[in-house]
Amino acid sequence: MIKEGITLDTKGISQAVISRLPRYYRYLGDLKEAGIERISSSALSVKMNVTASQIRQDLNNFGGFGQQGYGYNVNYLRSEIGKILGLNDNHNIVVIGAGNLGQALAKYSSFERSGFFIKGIFDNNPKYIGETIRGIPIMMMEELEGFLEENEVDIAALTIPKEALEEVVKLLVKNNIKSFLNFVLTDLDLPEDVVVENVHLSDSLMKLSYNMKSQKDVGE
Amino acid sequence: MIKEGITLDTKGISQAVISRLPRYYRYLGDLKEAGIERISSSALSVKMNVTASQIRQDLNNFGGFGQQGYGYNVNYLRSEIGKILGLNDNHNIVVIGAGNLGQALAKYSSFERSGFFIKGIFDNNPKYIGETIRGIPIMMMEELEGFLEENEVDIAALTIPKEALEEVVKLLVKNNIKSFLNFVLTDLDLPEDVVVENVHLSDSLMKLSYNMKSQKDVGE
Repeated sequence: MIKEGITLDTKGISQAVISRLPRYYRYLGDLKEAGIERISSSALSVKMNVTASQIRQDLNNFGGFGQQGYGYNVNYLRSEIGKILGLNDNHNIVVIGAGNLGQALAKYSSFERSGFFIKGIFDNNPKYIGETIRGIPIMMMEELEGFLEENEVDIAALTIPKEALEEVVKLLVKNNIKSFLNFVLTDLDLPEDVVVENVHLSDSLMKLSYNMKSQKDVGE
Repeated sequence: MIKEGITLDTKGISQAVISRLPRYYRYLGDLKEAGIERISSSALSVKMNVTASQIRQDLNNFGGFGQQGYGYNVNYLRSEIGKILGLNDNHNIVVIGAGNLGQALAKYSSFERSGFFIKGIFDNNPKYIGETIRGIPIMMMEELEGFLEENEVDIAALTIPKEALEEVVKLLVKNNIKSFLNFVLTDLDLPEDVVVENVHLSDSLMKLSYNMKSQKDVGE
């Protein structure tokens, strides 16, 4: 698994670089929508609040894509970054946990624009039997294994209580799920070939608290 | 504001170090709950999957806290990291947007353990008038300014549609809110003294997609 402390991927590219790619992709999408066909690295850098040299360095990890004196072709660069991010393949997701967070994810249709499709939501509370969210069925946990056998799913989003996590993850890994979007405040201990992206909201709040304090100290 | 491309805080400490602090805090809390009173940096490093030298380096930014041959006092180190993170002060939050994500945040009582309290939820949909979530009232947007005058709030969590964002943020900044937990997929353009922590779920999915692909390439 991609451990939080380890910063290089299998190609020697740092997770910090990888973290910036979705943002480049997003900005280039905005430029494309605005009808802009090419942009210099300096103009892109002003728009994105990173240095031009950072953008060049980041993209050089994957081969460059710019032309001296011409800048970047917006559409080409966006599509190349999309390929690097693996967005030319669709990804199917199951959401484990039909609580508010799980339901919020299922309602969030804009994931689909980047090729991420939620195919099913699973919970063990019988009150959800027969319910759907945006046409996505909520099923019971005992149906999960059969569902994974019959459907091509590659990502599981985890929004269940901490206590239930270990058993559920074991079942998912056994059924060949190797990618997790984990909202549960626990670091998962997983096989080497499994990748995890943690979304730990209280860690974000603590980081915010630090930066608030640090900002206040300057003001005083 | 803390811009995404800028990595040093006002004290010259990198956001990468700051990002690891909540995780140290969390692990030390688990150790404390398990009754463990002290731990060596190497034992902590095994548990957390980071190198012992990284832990030492990270903590040295703030003065050390370890003793050669003794290791770290769990309770003391946790409380010091808590102070660094500003967790000795309580933080009051308003959630803007009473949709599923806003409701999920309001239901999530474990923020309170770290001193983060959601005081009110605001929306402009009259169907929510008079509703509460876990005792937290949902109010209408026109009540926001009065609420901020009468209550000490320091963080706003933003879970509204992209289109509504700019106007709402302007109102919040005008009313002295200087910290945002932003779930909206837009980078905010804000005054220098405002801090933002972005939670961009589709960026996380894209990063996951990259790491899945990179893992698959190795397997082939």
